[in-house]
Amino acid sequence: MKVEESRKYWVALNLVLAEKLKAAKKIVDHFSTIEEVFKASSRDLIALGIEKEKAEALTSSKILDQACREIEKLERKKYSIITLEDASYPEYLREIFDPPFVLYCAGKAEALKGPAVSVVGARKPSAYGRAVAEKIARDLASRGIVIVSGLARGVDSIAHWGALEGGKTVAVLGSGLENIYPREHHTLFHKVIEQGAVVSEFPLRSPPLGFHFPIRNRIISGLSLAVVVVEASKRSGSLISARLSLEQNREVMAVPGNITSGLSQGTNWLIKTGAKLVESWEDVAEELPSPLKEKLLSQKEEKKEKPPSMSPQEKRVFELLGLDSLTHIDDLVEGTEFSVSEILSILLNLELKGLIFQRPGKYFQRRL
Amino acid sequence: MKVEESRKYWVALNLVLAEKLKAAKKIVDHFSTIEEVFKASSRDLIALGIEKEKAEALTSSKILDQACREIEKLERKKYSIITLEDASYPEYLREIFDPPFVLYCAGKAEALKGPAVSVVGARKPSAYGRAVAEKIARDLASRGIVIVSGLARGVDSIAHWGALEGGKTVAVLGSGLENIYPREHHTLFHKVIEQGAVVSEFPLRSPPLGFHFPIRNRIISGLSLAVVVVEASKRSGSLISARLSLEQNREVMAVPGNITSGLSQGTNWLIKTGAKLVESWEDVAEELPSPLKEKLLSQKEEKKEKPPSMSPQEKRVFELLGLDSLTHIDDLVEGTEFSVSEILSILLNLELKGLIFQRPGKYFQRRL
Repeated sequence: MKVEESRKYWVALNLVLAEKLKAAKKIVDHFSTIEEVFKASSRDLIALGIEKEKAEALTSSKILDQACREIEKLERKKYSIITLEDASYPEYLREIFDPPFVLYCAGKAEALKGPAVSVVGARKPSAYGRAVAEKIARDLASRGIVIVSGLARGVDSIAHWGALEGGKTVAVLGSGLENIYPREHHTLFHKVIEQGAVVSEFPLRSPPLGFHFPIRNRIISGLSLAVVVVEASKRSGSLISARLSLEQNREVMAVPGNITSGLSQGTNWLIKTGAKLVESWEDVAEELPSPLKEKLLSQKEEKKEKPPSMSPQEKRVFELLGLDSLTHIDDLVEGTEFSVSEILSILLNLELKGLIFQRPGKYFQRRL
Repeated sequence: MKVEESRKYWVALNLVLAEKLKAAKKIVDHFSTIEEVFKASSRDLIALGIEKEKAEALTSSKILDQACREIEKLERKKYSIITLEDASYPEYLREIFDPPFVLYCAGKAEALKGPAVSVVGARKPSAYGRAVAEKIARDLASRGIVIVSGLARGVDSIAHWGALEGGKTVAVLGSGLENIYPREHHTLFHKVIEQGAVVSEFPLRSPPLGFHFPIRNRIISGLSLAVVVVEASKRSGSLISARLSLEQNREVMAVPGNITSGLSQGTNWLIKTGAKLVESWEDVAEELPSPLKEKLLSQKEEKKEKPPSMSPQEKRVFELLGLDSLTHIDDLVEGTEFSVSEILSILLNLELKGLIFQRPGKYFQRRL
């Protein structure tokens, strides 16, 4: 069967089971083609562990007609549909435990190919969180990273707006594409599809039900190489997203904040439990895979101003260090009139100026 | 020679070489007793690499008289002196690369025995830094931890004041005990010696010279099991202290802050490069050695209110977990009607409520 033909079966399956990840996965794993699902009896499906009501919906004579009507509506809107069988299905998303088998897509589907980083966080961020979300999204997008988020209020929408300043962004909805939520983000929706895409696994008219959002979050992180959390209270959905991202082997990073701010408790907790602390786009870039990381960081080099100045003492120590060799701290103490404390202070200053770096075992080296 | 008699030799050596850590270490390592140093000729000392001026000072006939007068002054003030030979010399301080061979001590010398944690940071902290320094010092001191700091303006003095609310504190000066710096901390000096001690390796009248402070910092961390940095700008002395503390194998911890605050750039940098993120005294306690750690954290348990409530879903999952056994996440998915996303969300909530913890490999366990 051609991909075009199989499409209606995927859409039909999704109309019934988009909200039931476990059941959907059971079916997809059991049948060798999507067509076969619709040859099965409801008894077969129930035996697989599918609820009676869902099994009957799947075997009803109406379901394929409904799917065809859904596809027609999509075509009229110029939305596209991407199934697990499509070569254009986003590569990273395919790797997660429970990839959506259908993605409804408004806008430019190629944006889904990334490379992407998601920026998520509190629904009601502080001024601090807003400023940080905007800057990190803009800085990354302007360097070619697609910013993925959830079109939600707060950090999500700020991240989309920040990304739109400089590049591409992708929004993943917890409702259908014809049921944009929250309503006030209609303008943002249209801006996003001009420069990127809005996607959803839920049928076109699906409402934004509460339990859709944690399910949706696995797509946000699934599309991304890394997830940056900007402000999150201690019991927020963003932490659940972050945990899910770890399960998907995504890098999880967080922006720290004052311990007196409830909105930073979640991000500080993430950092304490292993998430990388993010202060700038460079911190994000450093955790991305090669050669993307090097490509991004070389853009930093290009924009770099003249090297920082050094004190005579710093120059003294700097000149004892090599570009492609390691020097032990003992040799620096031996080779100069400085005490251990003084050498350490000088080395630290050189490191903070970005002129040298430290290697394990108290070895030091110049930066290129 | 009795310890009492050798004392004047140590004081004499210190009068000449307190500021010259490398030279002092050379001498102490070379001679088998402190008395022998004063039998050596200035030529012998110069051959060891001691500057001519210092060698001549050490061999001058006046130096031992000066030392005796220094000791008399100390006795009049009821200050004590602790040398490297004394059994009462602080155990942890003795382990560092370059321990001071003489400690002048005002107040209660037993406070030097710890267990101690140092709290250091910016000279001009923000309101945030002040609040945090005070609380962490107070919380730790009231649980029996001696708070060590530098009597400096800002975080140092706030940490001392906080500690005085609940327990003991030790101040380490960069000047002599008769030259308290900064002047406005006279009251604090006297408060500290009532409940703890003020120490210095510098002779009584030594001025607070700039280069004394990095030297002094090695004593602050040397006396402590761990160093907590509360606010530090990117090029601050606190970062040098922190680096020194790492060299001394001390735990380095830092309080995070907004990335938009210059005063948090140093602490965020420390966290990014491996320092533990600190939000509360419990975070500090968790990094201290056993059995101290357990003793401190059990105080937390005693003060604990009734356990947090659970939703029916949380209760469901909680009841599948054991107190002394590990349960894999797959078994929780298998054993319930919940999807992977839902289980993750429930587990995260239970973890945030302090009811369970996660172990490597996606295993979960109840907390005791």
